[in-house]
Amino acid sequence: MIEIRTDLAIENREMYQEQNEGEIPGIKVENKEGKDYTITRVRILDELGEKNLGKPRGIYITIESPKLKNSDQELKDEMSKVLAKEIKALGMNDENTKTLIVGLGNWNVTPDALGPKVIDRVLVTRQFFIAYKKDSDETVANVSALSPGVMGLTGIETGEIIKGIVEKTKPDLVIAIDALASRRMERVNTTIQLSDTGINPGAGIGNKRLGLNEEFLGVPVLSIGVPTVVDAATMVNDTMDLIIGSMKEQADVGTEFYGMLEGISNEDKYTLIKEVLEPYMSNLVVTPKEIDLIIDDLSIIIANGLNIALHHGIHLDDVNRYIR
Amino acid sequence: MIEIRTDLAIENREMYQEQNEGEIPGIKVENKEGKDYTITRVRILDELGEKNLGKPRGIYITIESPKLKNSDQELKDEMSKVLAKEIKALGMNDENTKTLIVGLGNWNVTPDALGPKVIDRVLVTRQFFIAYKKDSDETVANVSALSPGVMGLTGIETGEIIKGIVEKTKPDLVIAIDALASRRMERVNTTIQLSDTGINPGAGIGNKRLGLNEEFLGVPVLSIGVPTVVDAATMVNDTMDLIIGSMKEQADVGTEFYGMLEGISNEDKYTLIKEVLEPYMSNLVVTPKEIDLIIDDLSIIIANGLNIALHHGIHLDDVNRYIR
Amino acid sequence: MIEIRTDLAIENREMYQEQNEGEIPGIKVENKEGKDYTITRVRILDELGEKNLGKPRGIYITIESPKLKNSDQELKDEMSKVLAKEIKALGMNDENTKTLIVGLGNWNVTPDALGPKVIDRVLVTRQFFIAYKKDSDETVANVSALSPGVMGLTGIETGEIIKGIVEKTKPDLVIAIDALASRRMERVNTTIQLSDTGINPGAGIGNKRLGLNEEFLGVPVLSIGVPTVVDAATMVNDTMDLIIGSMKEQADVGTEFYGMLEGISNEDKYTLIKEVLEPYMSNLVVTPKEIDLIIDDLSIIIANGLNIALHHGIHLDDVNRYIR
Amino acid sequence: MIEIRTDLAIENREMYQEQNEGEIPGIKVENKEGKDYTITRVRILDELGEKNLGKPRGIYITIESPKLKNSDQELKDEMSKVLAKEIKALGMNDENTKTLIVGLGNWNVTPDALGPKVIDRVLVTRQFFIAYKKDSDETVANVSALSPGVMGLTGIETGEIIKGIVEKTKPDLVIAIDALASRRMERVNTTIQLSDTGINPGAGIGNKRLGLNEEFLGVPVLSIGVPTVVDAATMVNDTMDLIIGSMKEQADVGTEFYGMLEGISNEDKYTLIKEVLEPYMSNLVVTPKEIDLIIDDLSIIIANGLNIALHHGIHLDDVNRYIR
Repeated sequence: MIEIRTDLAIENREMYQEQNEGEIPGIKVENKEGKDYTITRVRILDELGEKNLGKPRGIYITIESPKLKNSDQELKDEMSKVLAKEIKALGMNDENTKTLIVGLGNWNVTPDALGPKVIDRVLVTRQFFIAYKKDSDETVANVSALSPGVMGLTGIETGEIIKGIVEKTKPDLVIAIDALASRRMERVNTTIQLSDTGINPGAGIGNKRLGLNEEFLGVPVLSIGVPTVVDAATMVNDTMDLIIGSMKEQADVGTEFYGMLEGISNEDKYTLIKEVLEPYMSNLVVTPKEIDLIIDDLSIIIANGLNIALHHGIHLDDVNRYIR
Repeated sequence: MIEIRTDLAIENREMYQEQNEGEIPGIKVENKEGKDYTITRVRILDELGEKNLGKPRGIYITIESPKLKNSDQELKDEMSKVLAKEIKALGMNDENTKTLIVGLGNWNVTPDALGPKVIDRVLVTRQFFIAYKKDSDETVANVSALSPGVMGLTGIETGEIIKGIVEKTKPDLVIAIDALASRRMERVNTTIQLSDTGINPGAGIGNKRLGLNEEFLGVPVLSIGVPTVVDAATMVNDTMDLIIGSMKEQADVGTEFYGMLEGISNEDKYTLIKEVLEPYMSNLVVTPKEIDLIIDDLSIIIANGLNIALHHGIHLDDVNRYIR
Repeated sequence: MIEIRTDLAIENREMYQEQNEGEIPGIKVENKEGKDYTITRVRILDELGEKNLGKPRGIYITIESPKLKNSDQELKDEMSKVLAKEIKALGMNDENTKTLIVGLGNWNVTPDALGPKVIDRVLVTRQFFIAYKKDSDETVANVSALSPGVMGLTGIETGEIIKGIVEKTKPDLVIAIDALASRRMERVNTTIQLSDTGINPGAGIGNKRLGLNEEFLGVPVLSIGVPTVVDAATMVNDTMDLIIGSMKEQADVGTEFYGMLEGISNEDKYTLIKEVLEPYMSNLVVTPKEIDLIIDDLSIIIANGLNIALHHGIHLDDVNRYIR
Repeated sequence: MIEIRTDLAIENREMYQEQNEGEIPGIKVENKEGKDYTITRVRILDELGEKNLGKPRGIYITIESPKLKNSDQELKDEMSKVLAKEIKALGMNDENTKTLIVGLGNWNVTPDALGPKVIDRVLVTRQFFIAYKKDSDETVANVSALSPGVMGLTGIETGEIIKGIVEKTKPDLVIAIDALASRRMERVNTTIQLSDTGINPGAGIGNKRLGLNEEFLGVPVLSIGVPTVVDAATMVNDTMDLIIGSMKEQADVGTEFYGMLEGISNEDKYTLIKEVLEPYMSNLVVTPKEIDLIIDDLSIIIANGLNIALHHGIHLDDVNRYIR
């Protein structure tokens, strides 16, 4: 399988389908169309599905809303509601669930700062449950939240920090928020992926080598992510494909050229691009120029979605009240 | 004992001496005068000393440099060196020590952000020891660092977070950096206190109820703090004393007035001030107006001091190279 | 007149009344009580009023809402509406007015950063009027906005920067936002003052030596300010008065003491405090510990108020949409 | 000429040379090799040179140091020195020159924040010349500094703000700092361009439509810029050229293919890429992932360079003392 960086299950599926006919054995896919968004639910059912998609079994839900880049406040509110609904539909939490929200990523690197910015904005309540020695509350659930930083900042693997805290505070559920990589520019900052499998080794754009999943932490892990970058080599690769496709249609050229293009496998082409770019391009990413403002907006959408989904007394009408 | 907020052992001693003659039983005090600074070492020797000073036994070192507010770069460098020397003299670390530095306090509240700002600036190396599977290095020691936030932000007690991480990463030494409260305006931002006793319940300006000490964490804890605020009631109280003292000298007034002043005990006076200020003044602090810049400067002094003290290959000449 | 730092006309009036009987000649005062706020309109009518109050003739409107510190979202929205209503009632702008909003103060010093933070949040539209060559619009008025910094940061007097921009862009109205000093802790962060006289030499907490007024700029200037600090000497002074008042009532002491207290004039007492505090206290201010968050909240209240007052198509229901 | 975005004179020259033989008529070029850097001085001598290079006559100096991305402190210090030397060699300032430094760009958009970040770090002195009524000083020159923001933030053209301030404060020299666009990834964040022609319409990555040049401002303008982004279409274009070049060499393919490639002009190819990317890619840029930290470092290099070049009493040994 080609080493194109993506964290989205729907893109693993697309890459499979580029090379194979029909649906992938071992997975089940459902689509739902809303007015301004599409929801795709990819279920990996068994070992075969795991192998074919390169991800552990579980559900991967993608909410795509291309219009999100138009910065429309109503659509943002709508996205928070849709996100909240999908979280609740997973059935991982109710009003008695103790949740620890973890904001992964590096707050010094704008496209990687989504997780920490969500943490700044979620409603944290665990301290009141402790202070008043309560087990439940009429309006809010027990929520704690933390941004552990990245290994380059702390010298400590994120997983170790989270596991230590989970052992001390014993939450029922961990929710991990992270910035993702996509292979398609049009998904960047317009797509939210949820999964009940947590975050697994090999995935992600950073150095998150330990998995943040139930196996490692001992409690279920819901992961929520947004692709915020496309790596530069991926973008060049995909654009070249589009260009060549376009040239094929337009140009009246003979068989030799097509033969040559078909002769170069996708892997070779991507490797070639990587090699060409290597000298000056380690760690290059493609982002919209206004990425700082976009990450702010996305963090509000997700924090609002979490506040609605976790706290039974908070509804969208008043959700902006709890946001900083 | 009066409930005046201070975290400085030398101020506990001053308060004792205001009401008693002679040195405090159970403690030993040494002074050292430098050109631009004074070092006071208060050693609490036994249970009697603990009771008299209201602090656990151990050593409390105070470096005072009133000129520090003049923003002189040479003096700042000097302070980093003095701090490094005092840290090393405590004998808590050598080049094989694995150290976890913890930055306590709330990054959203300027005078409480000293700890987190130091963490942003210390040289973190543990990730390289792991990546290269090394136990020691020619120039740097094994250092990790983290700002756990405060309970109001995370819903989790700072002590729980740190203890979880200590159990996972097994450092030999924890160094805790914190903003302190002083009762004397002249000590604010000009004084550094080190102690081998860690941070203990009751001390501090925040809600740090669990102790960060060897008893709780299982490893020695070095605490480093700077008083960054005086609480408003304390300042009014002390200023009134100065005023009244000044009035006594100047005014030619009779016995009745002195009698009255002496009749009001210190406790009563402070309580009275607290009551008068209460309605509009919960949580008021007194700071210099440029506190944002001062906290930045102090965090550089401490981070430089730590970088020199912990890493055997870093000296003051090149220490600014490792600072962000 | 005593040199106690205040920028509030109602406090100048209070100080006058502490030493004189009856209303101040040359001024007219109106009060209005709302549910959660009080509005006081002080009108300086003539030269006598100017002399008595130490401020140029014009109107000074104070909106006080002590509950504002409780961080209640509905009250904040209410304050934005009240502010918008008072701005409109001044009759300085309509939908064709070209307004330049100026955020005074130093963004590096939290309690002085109110103006710059408001500028970050107001809806700026002048660029669209230029791009589409329009003179008017159905929903928004022509608004530009700028934070000029302070002389310590730029080396340039604020007034020079603003005057240069006014000459180039020719607005009809300048609105200047500034952090103020109060003499009463209970007014800090709970009070908004508006005035049609702009900002005048001698007022303010910074080095704003040039006036920002119609005389200097050539266009009317509306000033909006919030007291965000009390200087430390003022606070000690006022607290001592409260304490001594309280002691008088409680203590059964004779005439000599009262005589002495009455013998010390207010001026002398304040001077004495200043002298005592001077050595270690230049530029000390008293603020709530959470001043960073409070300034954020206040900047949203004022920016929302301005957005409603200036743009005829924006109402409170949708005002939060235009806020960053 | 192709509409490829670049602000670097050396890249205009490269593009000319890709399509023409020999040196460009009307320009003169000098190269100097240092150990870790190359300096190229492009002088546009006459109208012919202006037309061929698409830039006004004057000198364009480029300092290129590919190793700069290795984050080596000594090289950074070296770059500050080289920059200072080049500034002084232009002969635009001496110790009596009154300089206004202008930081162009949007502080909310990381790769565009270089100018504002330099302003935060230069030593500003004009206020002292005014306070002490001095015309000259033994160690520092008269420097003021300002970040005017961008039109999207203020509603005012940058040029209008600067011109207003120049008319009020009458500097002898304006220095404008700006983030630039390059067409080559390897130049991003490793190249500094200086020019005595200021900033001219059409250049730049933002909406700076008024020129910041001597003609408009009435005083000489030195511009200093660093390319911080490559636009995405440019990067795809250049990478495709590299790939196709590489394929040509490797593949054993016949004449038809080469014929087709040669048949597509550069303009057509770039236009095709633009069209293909348009739907999802307005305003995409390519940057290193750690752009936030890189911009910080670059701003220190430039601010140090300016502090040395402008203030006769500041040398590299002590220059870090004046940096925040």
